[in-house]
Amino acid sequence: MLQNEWEKLVQSELKGADLKSLTWQTPEGIEIKPLYTLQDLEGIEEISSFPGLFPYLRGPRATMYSNRPWTLRQYAGFSTPEESNKFYRENLKAGQRGLSVAFDLPTHRGYDSDHPRVAGDVGKAGVAVDTVEDMKLLFEGIPLNQISVSMTMNGAVIPIMAAFIVAAEEQGVKQDQLSGTIQNDILKEFMVRNTYIYPPEPSMRLVADVIQYTAQYMPKFNSISVSGYHMHEAGATAVEELGFTLADGLEYVRTALSRGLSIDDFAPRLSFFFGIGMNFFMEIAKLRAARVLWAELMKPFNPKNLQSLKLRTHCQTSGVSLAAHDPLNNIVRTTLEALAAVLGGTQSLHTDSYDEALGLPTQKAARVARNTQLILAEETGITHVIDPLGGSYYVEALTHSLKRHAKSLIDEVEALGGMTKAILSGMPKLRIEESAAKRQARLDLGQETVVGVNKYTTEEEPYEILDIDEPWVRNRQIKQLESIKKSRDSKKVRGLLEALTQAASEKDTNVMPLAIEAMRARATVGEVSEALEKVFTRYEAPIRAIHGVYGDLYGHEKGREVDALRKRVEAFALKEGRKPRLMIAKVGQDGHDRGAKVIATAFEDLGFEVDIGPLFQTPEEAAFQAIAHHVHVLGLSSQAAGHRVLVPQVMAALKKAGAKDILVICGGVIPPQDHKTLYDQGVAAIFGPGTPLLVAAKYVLELLEKRQT
Amino acid sequence: MLQNEWEKLVQSELKGADLKSLTWQTPEGIEIKPLYTLQDLEGIEEISSFPGLFPYLRGPRATMYSNRPWTLRQYAGFSTPEESNKFYRENLKAGQRGLSVAFDLPTHRGYDSDHPRVAGDVGKAGVAVDTVEDMKLLFEGIPLNQISVSMTMNGAVIPIMAAFIVAAEEQGVKQDQLSGTIQNDILKEFMVRNTYIYPPEPSMRLVADVIQYTAQYMPKFNSISVSGYHMHEAGATAVEELGFTLADGLEYVRTALSRGLSIDDFAPRLSFFFGIGMNFFMEIAKLRAARVLWAELMKPFNPKNLQSLKLRTHCQTSGVSLAAHDPLNNIVRTTLEALAAVLGGTQSLHTDSYDEALGLPTQKAARVARNTQLILAEETGITHVIDPLGGSYYVEALTHSLKRHAKSLIDEVEALGGMTKAILSGMPKLRIEESAAKRQARLDLGQETVVGVNKYTTEEEPYEILDIDEPWVRNRQIKQLESIKKSRDSKKVRGLLEALTQAASEKDTNVMPLAIEAMRARATVGEVSEALEKVFTRYEAPIRAIHGVYGDLYGHEKGREVDALRKRVEAFALKEGRKPRLMIAKVGQDGHDRGAKVIATAFEDLGFEVDIGPLFQTPEEAAFQAIAHHVHVLGLSSQAAGHRVLVPQVMAALKKAGAKDILVICGGVIPPQDHKTLYDQGVAAIFGPGTPLLVAAKYVLELLEKRQT
Repeated sequence: MLQNEWEKLVQSELKGADLKSLTWQTPEGIEIKPLYTLQDLEGIEEISSFPGLFPYLRGPRATMYSNRPWTLRQYAGFSTPEESNKFYRENLKAGQRGLSVAFDLPTHRGYDSDHPRVAGDVGKAGVAVDTVEDMKLLFEGIPLNQISVSMTMNGAVIPIMAAFIVAAEEQGVKQDQLSGTIQNDILKEFMVRNTYIYPPEPSMRLVADVIQYTAQYMPKFNSISVSGYHMHEAGATAVEELGFTLADGLEYVRTALSRGLSIDDFAPRLSFFFGIGMNFFMEIAKLRAARVLWAELMKPFNPKNLQSLKLRTHCQTSGVSLAAHDPLNNIVRTTLEALAAVLGGTQSLHTDSYDEALGLPTQKAARVARNTQLILAEETGITHVIDPLGGSYYVEALTHSLKRHAKSLIDEVEALGGMTKAILSGMPKLRIEESAAKRQARLDLGQETVVGVNKYTTEEEPYEILDIDEPWVRNRQIKQLESIKKSRDSKKVRGLLEALTQAASEKDTNVMPLAIEAMRARATVGEVSEALEKVFTRYEAPIRAIHGVYGDLYGHEKGREVDALRKRVEAFALKEGRKPRLMIAKVGQDGHDRGAKVIATAFEDLGFEVDIGPLFQTPEEAAFQAIAHHVHVLGLSSQAAGHRVLVPQVMAALKKAGAKDILVICGGVIPPQDHKTLYDQGVAAIFGPGTPLLVAAKYVLELLEKRQT
Repeated sequence: MLQNEWEKLVQSELKGADLKSLTWQTPEGIEIKPLYTLQDLEGIEEISSFPGLFPYLRGPRATMYSNRPWTLRQYAGFSTPEESNKFYRENLKAGQRGLSVAFDLPTHRGYDSDHPRVAGDVGKAGVAVDTVEDMKLLFEGIPLNQISVSMTMNGAVIPIMAAFIVAAEEQGVKQDQLSGTIQNDILKEFMVRNTYIYPPEPSMRLVADVIQYTAQYMPKFNSISVSGYHMHEAGATAVEELGFTLADGLEYVRTALSRGLSIDDFAPRLSFFFGIGMNFFMEIAKLRAARVLWAELMKPFNPKNLQSLKLRTHCQTSGVSLAAHDPLNNIVRTTLEALAAVLGGTQSLHTDSYDEALGLPTQKAARVARNTQLILAEETGITHVIDPLGGSYYVEALTHSLKRHAKSLIDEVEALGGMTKAILSGMPKLRIEESAAKRQARLDLGQETVVGVNKYTTEEEPYEILDIDEPWVRNRQIKQLESIKKSRDSKKVRGLLEALTQAASEKDTNVMPLAIEAMRARATVGEVSEALEKVFTRYEAPIRAIHGVYGDLYGHEKGREVDALRKRVEAFALKEGRKPRLMIAKVGQDGHDRGAKVIATAFEDLGFEVDIGPLFQTPEEAAFQAIAHHVHVLGLSSQAAGHRVLVPQVMAALKKAGAKDILVICGGVIPPQDHKTLYDQGVAAIFGPGTPLLVAAKYVLELLEKRQT
């Protein structure tokens, strides 16, 4: 009866429009009604559950933050180990409670800093670590038996884990005292982040080696952080992030079991990692649903230890939600995302700095990011009550709905034979890329708002940016490598590396102990990686792209704009005798290809012919491919700050080959401070994060048209 | 059974400590348990109610934000009408949907800009409006039949309403087309904000005149905004803010009824105004509880129109929660407060700028403040669902608990004979001042955290501040007044003002129509106020202070510090032959005395003898009182930016009188940029917002001790 009375009122407020018009279709395909009531909770059993008890809807621990808040854990690392160490020590003094190390891309990809392919990337998007000496400098003055360390490392997980263990040992800390987490989640690398080294199958074997080793010798160390975060950043919806991540987790569980470990040897030390975006209640529901779903997935393995059922997670606010325009707006975004993570019940949290869409965080921005968590934890009173949204009609119904959707996706993956096989089929990657392209289209068409970017825009103001002198860092690392190589027992190192290669070829040998010995003898990260590569080979990913992003826009207000662009592209093609051709290249060791893929899809949809270069090209390789394919435009996508070294090298290679008519454009995270240098080098256009693609396409087309006349 | 199992788990996580140790006692005296479950909702009837339906727990409208988000309404005004007009027009272009005018303090207090008492305050904390000409400039190019205007005006409500009506009329807009709100809430001025003119009883008569006039002629205009906000800012707890505000509302209802209006003539256009602070769930609960409580309070008046039962409210994030240290942290605070307001279901919202603890908002800070709301409304998806926290065990239980506590307080006020009488008894003011002093003590003792202020502090950095050239504004206003006075029909004006004085002396005459005639003839705000003052007199508030803030600190870690200070004060007194004596003065038209009162209480508690000067002293009056009372220290508290003119005048008056041994200190909102000027004038110390009082007291004591030796 009340329901009827309410509906009548709604009708009158809507002046006759239908109640249905208030239903919101989320990007996940979940229908959200304007009102939830007690009725919506019917049949949802878990809502009467308690925190710390199965299925953990309300939290993995009984007391949650009422006893101890989440762990403030900021992901950081840049330049040299000394510089990063200084930064860590300052953060620990300023209220941070654990460390989280960002390694640079060469380290991720198993290259030493002196490798010819890595110029431009050393110390840029993380700290450069080549040897145990670097690792020791990184943690100097930080007691590794007290401070837990999380390491984002997947590709080069073997030498890095080994170096960490040896560095601790030489600090006087035994491996069984070490607490922390190694990401060691290679599956998602093949889906989205691309910082793998070897093909999927041998990569999974190394994951298992690490799991087995830590299970045996490092009781306080989490051997995997199953990461949805990178899927989130690549554009996955909440359903995709949740479903694929838990499916990854299942695959690791089966891998560990296949090594003869019991579920309880392993599952209690598995941790998760989610990205938290702007869809506030969806993100809260995601964490709550994740716990229930994981507990239900683990139950059939019949663990004796209840810890095996609990999903514990780290979260990070979303980098992709940050805008380069009006960066202080990002403080608002990060605050809301951090709150969502906390209301969802995360165990630890990283909050992004407001300037991360412009470059590496400055000290001031890093402080505000840290303070965001401190304010949440100490000024708002929200820590006093466990799962404060528990019982909310909307939140509980949404949690349940998200759980059901994610479960279907997991079932889909399982039907393909589990995640390793699903990845080989390309399904998860394409699904996420499609979501990313759809979101970009929604932004371009104004169906979704980013304040200051596609609505309520203002003029840009310059912002202070943290500057990394890459050549200086690279040089410092190279000198250090030279001196270590001189002073070490080279014969012993060679012998150990050969033994490692041998071990890699034996299916049942764990490579970890030998890797530790090699690192202890001062083998380098690159050498250990290479010793394994000899058996495993280096993986080259197939290039695929999805199609049709703007679709049929008949009647849409932006439809005419899209149509007009398509017509101009056709006119250009008619005059030119062929379609305008664009090559999108990612040069250097940066594998973040969401932007590149989204751009490729959109330009293709507008009528361009688009080539996507293979990942990890050198500047020369990219230039040669562009020339060989007679492209009109070469687009360089940079997310990891390598552009200042790499873009000039591309320009030089083009010039040397006499290809002066290829238009070079840049996109991604390129601070305004660097624009002039790039323009001076001959770059024709630079598009920052959040540039509407229709704007970029129109601009590029105009440049092409000008050349044609 | 589950409950037992959970309690056992809690015990083990707490390592034997009691579950009770997790209970949180809020400043309101409400006990918050660590966990809420379905059981906590027993007996709370309203939780099954629907939005738009009695008792409006889930919102006053059936569709809430799912159909239309709250109104973004930023309170702003500064300098001249032309400057403010420019700012308003920019804001309207940038996504703001309604205006909210801040008048300067002279206008509030019914003084024209040329009055000798107002030097230093003209155009500082709001815009200077002296005549209809100013009002016309203020709204130039803004169609008053389309844009709703909220005006924060209480003391000088008659001439300002009149000027607004005439300005609209001369813009071609009839009064019955005007939409908006006049604050017209004089009761809370006597409790906390002190921008009254006349004593309580004649003030209430003017409130009634406005209510009656708008009921008759302005059907779209809200005749009162009953304001808890200023209580919040003065330090009231959520229970006090809620209870006293609704008690004020009740008093206004009775006042209107006593004028012969029916409840439905008036109640549907009554609106409310709450401050939203950092206690996240408490603030959400406050708005939800307010609606239920108001509906229950209104029901006995038997309205025919259901609108009479609905509490609709504007909210503003809390200025007192902002810190001058590390101001970007304030973006985090404002975001959380804004979200709380929205989750509580506010109808419109003002978000503070991050630099407001330093001075007036800069354009950049104002933009971020606006963007905070736009991001909430357009990026987070939270608008799609009505009352998204409805059903949450914690939020519903807290809402109910808050409602019960506030109801008791209202009963207490009613027992005193209603709010006018309660105010005369001094009860509400003292109650709020006690809460403010207690909070300061919690901050000083580290029991409550403000990040960057009393914990995790960093060095101060200079920030860009908006600069108002007060002498220039004052001069411009004075010239404008001179020219208007020359060109108007002075005889006619004199006649109308005399008629107004006559009307004021007649109980049953509404002064509004005559005030409109006078303003139309270009009488000034000051003249109209004075015409009424002739009958009503100007109110002088009694000065009271509360005692005992640090209390018994035996065993508290800060206890020794407090004891040591007390002993030093005693030692000083022994040597001096009398206690150190401090006078706290507020000079100029700024009535914000929370800071002054809190400081007085704390210093007294440490053993000082403390005088509090009457409000609204001129610099000379403050200096003379300090000299007459032989004080050691004169503390000048400034919240409204008048310090640059007023402090030098105090120094000059002291110097002229030869009182060079009186130590002058300043406190309040004083931007770092102004410090040097004040120090050059001889000011001994400046304490910004958030300075721990123990730090300030120690510093002052040291200065005194130095003089003694």
